[in-house]
Parts: sequence; C-alpha cells; structure tokens
Amino acid sequence: MRKYWSELVKNTEPYVPGEQANNKKYIKLNTNENPYPPSLKVIEAIKNNVDNKLRLYPDPSCQELKKIISGYYGIKSKEVFVGNGSDEVLAFSFMAFFNPGKEILFPNITYSFYPVYAKIFNINYKTVRLNKDFSLPFEEFFKSNGGIIFPNPNAPTGKDLPLSSIKKILKKNINNIVIIDEAYIDFGGESAVGLVEDFPNLIVLQTFSKSRSLAGLRVGFALGQKHLIEALARIKNSFNSYTLDRLALKGAIEAIKDNKYFEKTRYKIIKTREKVSAKLRKMGFDVIGSKANFIFISPPDKNAEDLFKKLKENGILVRYFNQKEIKDYLRVSIGTDQEMDSFIKTLENF
Amino acid sequence: MRKYWSELVKNTEPYVPGEQANNKKYIKLNTNENPYPPSLKVIEAIKNNVDNKLRLYPDPSCQELKKIISGYYGIKSKEVFVGNGSDEVLAFSFMAFFNPGKEILFPNITYSFYPVYAKIFNINYKTVRLNKDFSLPFEEFFKSNGGIIFPNPNAPTGKDLPLSSIKKILKKNINNIVIIDEAYIDFGGESAVGLVEDFPNLIVLQTFSKSRSLAGLRVGFALGQKHLIEALARIKNSFNSYTLDRLALKGAIEAIKDNKYFEKTRYKIIKTREKVSAKLRKMGFDVIGSKANFIFISPPDKNAEDLFKKLKENGILVRYFNQKEIKDYLRVSIGTDQEMDSFIKTLENF
Repeated sequence: MRKYWSELVKNTEPYVPGEQANNKKYIKLNTNENPYPPSLKVIEAIKNNVDNKLRLYPDPSCQELKKIISGYYGIKSKEVFVGNGSDEVLAFSFMAFFNPGKEILFPNITYSFYPVYAKIFNINYKTVRLNKDFSLPFEEFFKSNGGIIFPNPNAPTGKDLPLSSIKKILKKNINNIVIIDEAYIDFGGESAVGLVEDFPNLIVLQTFSKSRSLAGLRVGFALGQKHLIEALARIKNSFNSYTLDRLALKGAIEAIKDNKYFEKTRYKIIKTREKVSAKLRKMGFDVIGSKANFIFISPPDKNAEDLFKKLKENGILVRYFNQKEIKDYLRVSIGTDQEMDSFIKTLENF
Repeated sequence: MRKYWSELVKNTEPYVPGEQANNKKYIKLNTNENPYPPSLKVIEAIKNNVDNKLRLYPDPSCQELKKIISGYYGIKSKEVFVGNGSDEVLAFSFMAFFNPGKEILFPNITYSFYPVYAKIFNINYKTVRLNKDFSLPFEEFFKSNGGIIFPNPNAPTGKDLPLSSIKKILKKNINNIVIIDEAYIDFGGESAVGLVEDFPNLIVLQTFSKSRSLAGLRVGFALGQKHLIEALARIKNSFNSYTLDRLALKGAIEAIKDNKYFEKTRYKIIKTREKVSAKLRKMGFDVIGSKANFIFISPPDKNAEDLFKKLKENGILVRYFNQKEIKDYLRVSIGTDQEMDSFIKTLENF
C-alpha cells in the first residue's frame, strides 16, 4: 500500500527517540531529562491557568513569552522565535535557511536528528570528522558551504567549543547561516547569545527541556537578528498558526522568571557530573570531559553494548548508539546524586 | 537581509489567523472557538497532572490517546494519528500524500490554509469552483488529479456534503488520496469515519479545538488505514518526536471520555445556530444553511466589509474575507445564546 505514499515519505529515515520506559522501576538515564522537577512556581502558574480559557486559541505570536526570553538575554523581542520544543525549531530552521543543492556541514558525530532533517527537506550535507578525542576541527567549517549546524556542547559527547572558535566560524561564514544548537549550554558551555547583535548569520537554539526541567511541556526557542526570526515565522505561519498551547506558554514564562531555582538545579547537576566523572575515571573508564547534563563514557573493556544490556537488566537505562565511531561509548544522563550512586554501585558489582 | 533566507522562505505566503483580541470587552465570534468551557472533568484531569513528571518527555507515540480515540470511533489504534492541532496534521498530510508535479484539487472557496501548504510544499493545485449557492459540484473531483482535499462541512460557508457523494468521490479516486477535513463535523454533518475500513485512499481529519472546547490545548487527529497512518508517522518522526505535551494528552483523553458533556454542548450550539439563522433570515440576511459552529451571512445591502467594521466598533468581532467570490459575506461563529442575542440586537440597532 505504499502506492499512496508521497515520494517524500518513501525517502524518510525517521529519528528514533530514546526509550520511554513505562515500567517505573527503571533509573532513567537515557534521554537527558533533568532529574529535578520543574520549579514549584512553574507548577503553580500552570495549575492556575487550567481554566475555561482553554476553549480559546493561544496567542499565535507568543508575545509574552518572547518578551520575557528577550529580557532575560538582553536582546529584542523581535530577535526571539519560540516553538514546540527545539526539535520543531530545528525543523523550521532547516526549511528557513538551507537550500537543496549546496551542501551544509555538520559533525560526523552529533545529534542524530540532523541527517533526518536533511533527508526530509532534501538538503545535501557533508560531515566534518571529529578528532580522535572528539574535539571539533572547527577550521573545517571555513570551507565553502551552504550552511553550518552543530550543537555546543556537542551531543552525544558533551564536548564544548570555546566562544573564540565560534567567532572565527561566524566571521569566515558571514554569507552563510551558522546554527548553534545550545540545547545543553546551561551546564557549563559558553553561549553564543552575546554574538547575536554582531552577526547577521547567527542562529542560536535553546530549549526548556533540559536545564529548565520541562521536557514534558515542549518549548524551544531560537535567537537571532530580526530578519532571521522573520524567516522562521514565515515558515511557522505556513505550517501551523498555534504551535504552543496556553499551558506551555504559561509554564515557560514562569520558568524564566524563577531564575533562582534554575541556577540552583543546574549547578547541582554540574556538581554531580563532575563527581561521577571523577569516580568513573578512577574505575578505569574513559570519560569525555562534558559540559552537558550527560557524560559519554567507555568502559575499561570497551564493550559498551554489553554494558548497556547489563545495566538495563539491572534496572538502569542509558543510551547506546549503534554507530561505528562511537560503538565503544555509552551516553549517561546525569541523575540525582542518589541515582548516580546506584549507577556507580551497579557498575562496581559487575 | 533576505540573502540569508532559503528559497522556500522567499516563496512563502503565510496564513493569517483570525484576530486574538487582548481587549476583553469584545464578543469574540471570529475564530470558531466553542463558547462553552471544556468539561470540568477535563479541567480536573489536567490539573491533576501538573506535577513533577513535566520534567520527563511525553510518550512520543501517544498510545493512550490513540487507544481512546480508536475506541470511540470503533476502529483500530493503528488507524489513528494525533498531532499538535489539525493544522499540524494537515501540514504533515500535504507532505505525506501529495507530490509536486501532479495537481491536487480543492474548492476555490475553502479553508485558506490549503493554498499556503501547497505553496510551501511546492504542490501544484487546481481549484474546483463552487456552485452559486456554495454547494460543491463534486463530480469535478472525478477528473484525474494528484489528490483531493476539502472540508466537510466546508469553511467558511458551513455547507456540508452528504456521505453518498463522498462515497462516489472515494470510488472514483481509488488510486488517489482523498482527505476529508472534518474540523466542524460534530455540528451536524455526516462523518466519513465509517468509510475508513472500506477505502484505502481515505484520510479523515478532526480536531479537539471546536466541538471539544480545547482550542487552547492544540490537539488534532487523522483517521485512516494503517498504511496511511504509517506515512504520517514517518513524516512526524522526521520532524519532531514529541508534538503533544503531557497536559494536552491528558486533557484530550478526558475530553473523549466525557461524552455526555460533549453531546450536551454540541447540541446547544446547533440549537443556537438554527435560532440565529432563522432570526437573520427574517431580518433580510442571506444565511447559508450551516452544519458548522458558524454561519456565513450576507447583509441585505451586501456591504459585508462595512458591517464587519461597524460590528467591531460595537465590540463584536466576526470574520471578513477579502476574497472576490465571498466579499458580500461574513463568517460569524456561534457563541452562547446571550452573545448571539447581543449580536442580533446590535444588528437591529444599525
């Protein structure tokens, strides 16, 4: 019955997200969720808005949320675009800034959704091979290209690129779009947000799913100069007028407002990450220095797939990527101290 | 700064949704929202789920919601696709079932988002001219085409097509996809859901925004045979893994469960519509017989644009479409009896 499928569907190679375990006994360290709940103020704000107004459409332009995000970052409201999770913003960005024909560039080891977008929007791409230590040879981005996208810190390695290198990439690509996917930036990397005013070719993507504990609410955003935000808005308004519901808008606004809670929880995660990384290194693991809310680790015997299975049998879900270059590694999200103690203890028992 | 825009963006002609008045004094009859609040059980269910689990991703496959929708319609769970409002499901449908090159067909007077989708996904289309009374000359859909889409009842006219005609369209197009956009079906039209098992070329779209009073929550769905739902899922999973947030899922599930409230409110709206239609006819208006939660009316002097402005000045928002064929008409959403009394009284005062 594929005769009814469009050529586009026939060519898709859909993304497969990390397992969402229904079984509650798992310690879930596989989808980079925040181990801490959303701020109590966020919970309150949403609850207070579960009312009769749900019969009405939300504000299609999300003005209030844009205003509070722009205030937080010290930019203009017209320099903010919001969407249904940063995945939707990524999809719109591929549509808004890349063209079929000219190859875009991204790292060979990176967020595995990029090649999926490239496929569905018919964008050719070339990958930049990471160095052996998973660092990014950023000079490779100086070559002629049809656009650049990479996460900073990178996924699933957690390795960051300093702002000085990002500036060089932006300068060498002043006629091309450079998208910096900062889904994990709040856990220690240097954000490029401060460069938005200087570079007309820069898009910075962020999300409420990780550092703001709201994966279940679906809010992501892009920052960039007005002409770039307008391009994203044109795509969105050719696709779906209302991508954020009333409750998601309220929750996101409150999450930005409660900066104290945000700071507290992200530092807790950073502290746990450093502690766990040190312990694992002592146990003989290769641990890539991470600036994200996950670590990328290789066991002493290099048999990551085996370890993945054994952990699962013991009630701990982590992520294994069936990709040649990283087959010796596991990605482990940073949980609470208690969860990470169980993780370490389980490893010690093996 | 358009040099940074993709060719796709340069070609967009974005949709403009009806005004969302911030000013609360308006009687809002312009975006076909339900005048009645969501069921109290829906409100309760959402409130009870505003909790720490918001830190976790929602179920990307929305199994529970699919199950309850399929149960309601007596079809299989694999015959249901859910999305972020029926606009998102429409966008995915254009991607999943239509190809550039072969012209698709839709009415010349219809939901004004269809040509926007066609434009952005580079789908050629030809419009079928409605009869003078706005009825659909459905035999025009028997011509060779690359797919068919139309709303039933149609928008913004509210006119419905009987199931017998829809069956004929489906039979004559057994090798093409036929999408029936039933956003307004619960207000009196005959749904094609019962034909899903018989026709491998049928997609039925519905939404929670109108008859289930949840425009603010963003939930829509498609029904069709498994191979068609799989096509939609492949597009969605190449776009955004999690399009429905945790609270939208909970609210939608409960909205289907509370069938009693649904039946009560939709019949109230039908009753109000009939009463208002009769009154307007007595006042000399041309009122198209509607099976939707809105009416399409032309004032005795045919000056719809003027009436639109005068109503707005008097605190009543309706919708005027700046399109030649329907320039004499206004679309008026059905509000509460009280709101419609104010509407009629305001007209009488002019």
